[in-house]
Order: sequence, then C-alpha cells, then structure tokens
Amino acid sequence: MDEFGLIEQYFRRPARRSEVVLGVGDDAALVALRGAQRTLAVTTDTLIEGVHFAAGAPGFDVGYKALAVNVSDLAAMGARPLAFLLNLSLPRIDPMWLAGFRDGLFTLADAVSLDLIGGDTVRGPLAITITALGTTAPGGALTRTGARAGDRVYVSGLLGEAALGLLARSGHLSLPSEFQAPVLARLDRPLPRIEEGQALVGIASSAIDVSDGLVADLGHVLKASGVGAEIDLRRLPLSRAYDAAFATVGYDPALVFGDDYELCFTVPPERTPALAGIAPRFACGFHYIGDIVAGRGLVLRNGQDIYAPARSGYNHFDG
Amino acid sequence: MDEFGLIEQYFRRPARRSEVVLGVGDDAALVALRGAQRTLAVTTDTLIEGVHFAAGAPGFDVGYKALAVNVSDLAAMGARPLAFLLNLSLPRIDPMWLAGFRDGLFTLADAVSLDLIGGDTVRGPLAITITALGTTAPGGALTRTGARAGDRVYVSGLLGEAALGLLARSGHLSLPSEFQAPVLARLDRPLPRIEEGQALVGIASSAIDVSDGLVADLGHVLKASGVGAEIDLRRLPLSRAYDAAFATVGYDPALVFGDDYELCFTVPPERTPALAGIAPRFACGFHYIGDIVAGRGLVLRNGQDIYAPARSGYNHFDG
Repeated sequence: MDEFGLIEQYFRRPARRSEVVLGVGDDAALVALRGAQRTLAVTTDTLIEGVHFAAGAPGFDVGYKALAVNVSDLAAMGARPLAFLLNLSLPRIDPMWLAGFRDGLFTLADAVSLDLIGGDTVRGPLAITITALGTTAPGGALTRTGARAGDRVYVSGLLGEAALGLLARSGHLSLPSEFQAPVLARLDRPLPRIEEGQALVGIASSAIDVSDGLVADLGHVLKASGVGAEIDLRRLPLSRAYDAAFATVGYDPALVFGDDYELCFTVPPERTPALAGIAPRFACGFHYIGDIVAGRGLVLRNGQDIYAPARSGYNHFDG
Repeated sequence: MDEFGLIEQYFRRPARRSEVVLGVGDDAALVALRGAQRTLAVTTDTLIEGVHFAAGAPGFDVGYKALAVNVSDLAAMGARPLAFLLNLSLPRIDPMWLAGFRDGLFTLADAVSLDLIGGDTVRGPLAITITALGTTAPGGALTRTGARAGDRVYVSGLLGEAALGLLARSGHLSLPSEFQAPVLARLDRPLPRIEEGQALVGIASSAIDVSDGLVADLGHVLKASGVGAEIDLRRLPLSRAYDAAFATVGYDPALVFGDDYELCFTVPPERTPALAGIAPRFACGFHYIGDIVAGRGLVLRNGQDIYAPARSGYNHFDG
C-alpha cells in the first residue's frame, strides 16, 4: 500500500476509533468489530476527473465529495460509519491540491467519525477510489429488496438542489443571488444522511440514496423488490430556489439528475407513526411522495397527467 | 455501486462464503464475521494501464494479477481471505477483454476462496482498484513492527523470477527456451503465499510480501521495527533460470525489482524449530538469507564485500 509515502505524508493520523487495531502503514489494516452483534457493511465508489468532477475542481471539494458519496451509501444501509481506505491516482504531486483534498476529506471524515485506515497512491490520471466500512446490527440493515405494495415512499430533505447548482455553475440557469450559494453548497458539500439512516432501521422496509436521480434510484428499489410505485410530482420536496427556477427547468432536475444524496425509503403503513416519532429529531424532514403498488415500473403523476422525464437516469456510458 | 450493470453482467455470482450476508447489488455489501475471535484485515491496491501493466496486456493476466497483489498483502498479514471489491475504470466496454479479465480474476478468487461482494464501474482510463478483506485471529496478525535483533530473516520460494520474466519479455534478456515459460508465469500469475502466511502466525515476528523488491520491502520492516539487517547474497534463493542469467543480470533482479509476491519474514531463534516443523508442508521452501541486527539500515554482504544494488526499489514517481 502507498508506494510513494503520500498517504504517510498527507493522510496519516492516529486512529480515533478503538476498533482500529492497525491503521495506515502495514500490508493491511486491522479492524476489530465490537461484539458479535454487528455486521460489516462495505461500499466503494470511484470518481474520475472529467467524468465525476470537473477538471480543475478544488481539491477540498473533490476530497469531500469522494468520501460523501461513499458515506451516503452507508447511510442508505442504516450503517454506522467506521473506517475508510483511499486509492488516489495522480498525474503529478501538487502539494497545494493535495492539502486541500486532505482537508475536504477529513472535514467529512471527522463529522461522521470515520478513520482512514489504508490506501494506495499511484501515478496515473486523476482518479479517486474510496472504500468505506460501517457496521449494522444483524438483520438491521436497510436494503433495496423490502418494499411491498401498500408501503409509502418518502424522501429526506430536498430534491434537485445539486442539479440547480450544476445548472447555475455551468451558466445554464440564472438564479437570484440569495439562492446561488445554497444550491452550490448542496452540489459540492452534500450531507450524507447518516443519523437519519440509522434511525430508520426498524421503520423503513427499504432504502437507497439518491445519487443517480430519484427515477433511477427508486427504480433500483422497485426492481430489487419486485414492485411498482406511483409518485405524485406535486409532493416532491422542492426548495424556494427550485420554485424560483421551476418555470425554466420543470421537474426534471428533481427527478433525473441525482447528486442530492438524500435517502429515498419506503415505510409500511403500520410503521408511519414510528416515522412520525423520529421525524422531529431531523431538520431535513421526511417527505411522503407516493406509494408502492403491485406490478412493475414507476408512474409519475402530475394531477391527472402521467409525466415522462427527459431521460431516466445518469449513466456514464450513455455519452 | 456499479452504475452501468457491468458488475451485474460480468461479475455477479452467488456468494460461496457463508459470512457474506449480502453481496453485489445493494448500496453496500454485508459481511458477518464468524465469532468474536476474528479481526478484519483490509488491503487495497490500484493498477494503472501503462504503469503497473502494459497497454494491451491480456485481460486474463490483468484480472489475475490485480487480485494477486491484494491477496499477497493478506498473506503477509497471516490473514485468511474472505471477500473483495472491484473498482474498474474502463475507456470503453470490450466484451472479450472483460470476459478474459473476469476469468483471470475468478481463477485466483476461486483458488483462495474469495467472494466478490461489490464494486463500481466507471468510464475512464483503464485502471483497476481491488480491496480485499480477510480475517485474522486477534493478536495473531503478522505485522512489520515485530523484528528484533537476533531474529533470522527468511524468504519463501524464489526471488527475481518475475524480473527475469519482464527482462525476457522486453527483449533485454535471452533465456534458454526451457526457462522462458516458468519466469513468464511467475511474472503474470504469481502465487500469493496465503497458506504459508497463516502457518507463520505464532512463528514469524514480522512479515511483508515482496512486491517492490527485497531491498525496499525488507527496508519497510526494518524501519517499522527500528532495527537493521545483514543479508548474505549467496543465500538468496535463485532458480536454475536465474543461474543461467546471472552472468548477464547479477543480483539486482532478485533485490530491487519486486513483483515476486514471496513472503519475507523474520523468526526469533527459539522459534526456528517451529518453522522447521511447518516447512515440509510447503513446496516453496523457506530460505534463511540473513539476520536482524541492532541499529538501522540494510547491509548486503557478498562474502567479504558490501554490495550496493543499482537502485533501492520501485517508485512510480521516480520516472
């Protein structure tokens, strides 16, 4: 691991979690799971310059977001974050960029109590792979397979904010100035719903994080669960910034863009009181947007009309 | 994970290990460690086309080796392999190459009982990141920090075979034909010393795998343990192929090239009988090559002479 000393130089810190028996610097890291009652959750994502983030993007934003997308996957499992590994492919060593990257990475790592326990640094095109480890109680993970006809569909927070941020940054959307900063922050510094995900264990019947867009991600849940869904577009949680942009952009940024890293989850009717019980703890809110139905596929209703978005999701091999 | 269905299409198989609660296809994989007596070992390595393997290299060889370098790290910890994740960055979808890659990957995965539990596939320059999970008994891992003055230094198998393979393939070395195939096999299909590593738990005081060359890798152990070593070059385990090439290449391929994925480990004198006790189980052999000494640094002795290799190890940012 780390042939170049970069992880040693830039990223090595004492482990904070008592589970980390051995961190950066040996052939492998060692992690002791506390008690027999925890199951390991593991997720990994790769971000490539020019595909997942713009060439020349600030190191801080890239570091933050590379970790955030993985933490969001742990959130969608209802997992408690534990540790992560960093694989960094760099065309050259740029100390300023690396310092910013490290600061962005550790800002989020500290916020969610994740220790960096290993990784690899190689020469190549700029790319980041992060693998995140968390723990769940056995049988207590939120998966994609548990949605049943009659369950309600919820999302946390707001949808489409990251899309507005990207449209504003690229000059495709002109927003009132007070709305610029919030949507750019949602694009660059998403807040994975870690606490919310853990609180939903025992309440939600399925969950996924909205990384590729509501239509695509809810579609994964429907396929995995063998059910369909009807969503009421008028129930989508949209911000005042979105309202201001709505005449220009319509519903699609909230449906097919992704990058919001909110949770989309289903709740059986008998457990909606339990959801109402935990909801006051979370400022993001949990928004009822539709219902799981028998059959297959996702129907988007706009009053009496059936709505079809411009494209059904984000796929890097489309382009 | 896996935005493009490639892992689903090419790599998804039923999990074989009972520890794998949930494999490919959700936001994260779930792994239950059996019993409270096992600790998780995690390692990760990235391979980039044109840096770690040649452009146009066969998919089978790339898949095999990408996993082998990680399995070798588990071996060096004395860990038992459990599961792995695959992050694949591809410039395009080439079904033939992908099928070969998968076959190479699973050939080794099957040999060491590793389940593929997750990953990510993105569009980008050809690069592979693998993260491997294994388990060790608590306190039973082989680390780099335990070497003490008076310990003996051993290596498994043969050194320099992969280097000869590379020199032969690149036309820098002409080998008798009967030696070509074995050294190329050692370069393309290294055999991580998984069983050997587990057997050395309780016997070796430190261990590392020879990935960057004996000088560099033993150097890591010496630095981590705060000791020095004296190695007798005449004790290096060299093959008949190496003997045939020795007049041309000298000792350096066995010292500074790496890619052999043998284990280099230290054994306190009182435990050498235990080492002799397990040695007959392993065809590779364990070869005594020198001793740990007080102080710092590595001395290479060739009879009465002190030998200095041409370069001290492999570093991708050198070039």
